[in-house]
Amino acid sequence: MTAIYKGVTLWFTGLSGSGKTTISAAVAKEVRLRDRNVEILDGDIVRTHLSKGLGFSKEDRDTNIRRIGFVANLLSRNGVVAITAAISPYRHIRDEVRAMTADFLEVYVSAPLDVCEKRDVKGLYAKARSGEIKGFTGIDDPYEPPLTPEIICHTDRETIEESTQKVLTELELRGYIPSSKYSSSYSQ
Amino acid sequence: MTAIYKGVTLWFTGLSGSGKTTISAAVAKEVRLRDRNVEILDGDIVRTHLSKGLGFSKEDRDTNIRRIGFVANLLSRNGVVAITAAISPYRHIRDEVRAMTADFLEVYVSAPLDVCEKRDVKGLYAKARSGEIKGFTGIDDPYEPPLTPEIICHTDRETIEESTQKVLTELELRGYIPSSKYSSSYSQ
Repeated sequence: MTAIYKGVTLWFTGLSGSGKTTISAAVAKEVRLRDRNVEILDGDIVRTHLSKGLGFSKEDRDTNIRRIGFVANLLSRNGVVAITAAISPYRHIRDEVRAMTADFLEVYVSAPLDVCEKRDVKGLYAKARSGEIKGFTGIDDPYEPPLTPEIICHTDRETIEESTQKVLTELELRGYIPSSKYSSSYSQ
Repeated sequence: MTAIYKGVTLWFTGLSGSGKTTISAAVAKEVRLRDRNVEILDGDIVRTHLSKGLGFSKEDRDTNIRRIGFVANLLSRNGVVAITAAISPYRHIRDEVRAMTADFLEVYVSAPLDVCEKRDVKGLYAKARSGEIKGFTGIDDPYEPPLTPEIICHTDRETIEESTQKVLTELELRGYIPSSKYSSSYSQ
């Protein structure tokens, strides 16, 4: 019961409205219940604290993602389950972060654009369609899906609970969190 | 021997050439030997990974320090001894970071300007005097010493070993690291 678990960077990627924030929050909650240290670095938090002043050009987006990767790596190499939940649309930057991170799992939160657009939780797609927002991922800026993500959540045909469980099971199988049957009395 | 130690943000501040990097590296080495997780966020590392594009205006310096504080807090609240070693010349920003950090110790690395300038390890004072660098702390930009730092290292009249020991003793007394007599078999 005193197993030591390694930290990991759990990298969610997907379109706006695909369900990254919802699933990552549910995963974080359960991971915390299993006595593991968790931090969520979501896109908005990071843009406030680390990337104020950056815009949404290709270069600024890349810089933003590199910063998230830098901080997630600092946390995960110190035993934390570091969860990131930014759109992170470009494959080469995600792969760059993967290359510099010892423990990295990519979670592709997948839903067709029209499904995400119909949800439009933040009203951003409407603004992108009307031209109020430029360079919006999926509308007038590309989203490059991962080619070999460790986990794929199909949020158009899975419940949130199913997607969350999929991520948790993968974390268990790879030894990053204790199984749900017991809770570790200690974790690093 | 299975004591759990809390994380802490150990915030070094002082003029360029005062000895922040040297002492913080020596402290980090010893803390690591005592089985504690340690990260050093020094000014240069942070400017590369978190604050590229920021200059040395008052506003940009403040932003840089806030980012260091944000990351140090993320680390220290997850059990890490997070060591920062940036000049961090302005009192109000250091106090702002202190206010948002549960465990915060300020280490004032103090040496008179003329001593630091004579050392001039990076050749920066010469450039500041010649006008090649503008807004250099201590020359044409203010350094505001802490009013009530937890630790003061007088590097003009202490050896590096003495200053290092002073910091380690304070960390021991406050329960952030095990004493040097034994090494914890485990630490968070």
